[in-house]
Amino acid sequence: MKALGRHIVCEFSGCDPMLLSDVDGIHKMMVTAAKAARATIMESAFHRFEPQGVSGTVILAESHLSIHTWPEKGYAAMDFYTCGDHTDPWLACEHAAQALEAKSVLTTEFKRGIEKSDGEFTHVLSRDHEARVLTA
Amino acid sequence: MKALGRHIVCEFSGCDPMLLSDVDGIHKMMVTAAKAARATIMESAFHRFEPQGVSGTVILAESHLSIHTWPEKGYAAMDFYTCGDHTDPWLACEHAAQALEAKSVLTTEFKRGIEKSDGEFTHVLSRDHEARVLTA
Repeated sequence: MKALGRHIVCEFSGCDPMLLSDVDGIHKMMVTAAKAARATIMESAFHRFEPQGVSGTVILAESHLSIHTWPEKGYAAMDFYTCGDHTDPWLACEHAAQALEAKSVLTTEFKRGIEKSDGEFTHVLSRDHEARVLTA
Repeated sequence: MKALGRHIVCEFSGCDPMLLSDVDGIHKMMVTAAKAARATIMESAFHRFEPQGVSGTVILAESHLSIHTWPEKGYAAMDFYTCGDHTDPWLACEHAAQALEAKSVLTTEFKRGIEKSDGEFTHVLSRDHEARVLTA
């Protein structure tokens, strides 16, 4: 069952609030995360909210990474979506978990862009919900 | 069970390849989709690949929308992720399905940013996989 891409939906808990508030630091972390996944950045867009919180995405040659932070909760919602056999979105996820000092990361992985015999595209969950917590 | 946001992961099939190749048209469609969801755009980033394909995201005050297109397959991978009770990501999804002339749309919805009693954040699938096909 060949999929065009893999997409990890993640909830990061217990992150350092200072790190989650720093838009430049978040941007740099996302660039490093993309490189860790062996992906190539084509475009990026980041925004710092008042009084706090950062949102941003990097558009890759192989899909995208995204982040939304709630510093007051130590929480970040992240997505790591890459296409092609040369990339590994888990490497970006693990990099982000370390960089944000997350105490736990809840993940669900999809395989996306699976072409069925009738030409329709589907996706499937490739890991159990709550199956993988990266840090403790 | 209060969630900070809703995130719909979508596979669009049977779309018009011309529409999927037009980066300006895709950008405009994404702006309209965000408005349909009653969301506010803060930033955007779009890229056209050679020989074909478009990727892009709009960063919202309420999270993000993203798209990656494969015109040669009539396929687009889209995400509609919004926070707050005033937004509805399904309105953006339905707008995009019509605009891209999708023959079918496979969707899975998450509720994200659910705070547990121990302060950890989780997500849950809120609809069955393959439960909702928007167009036929």
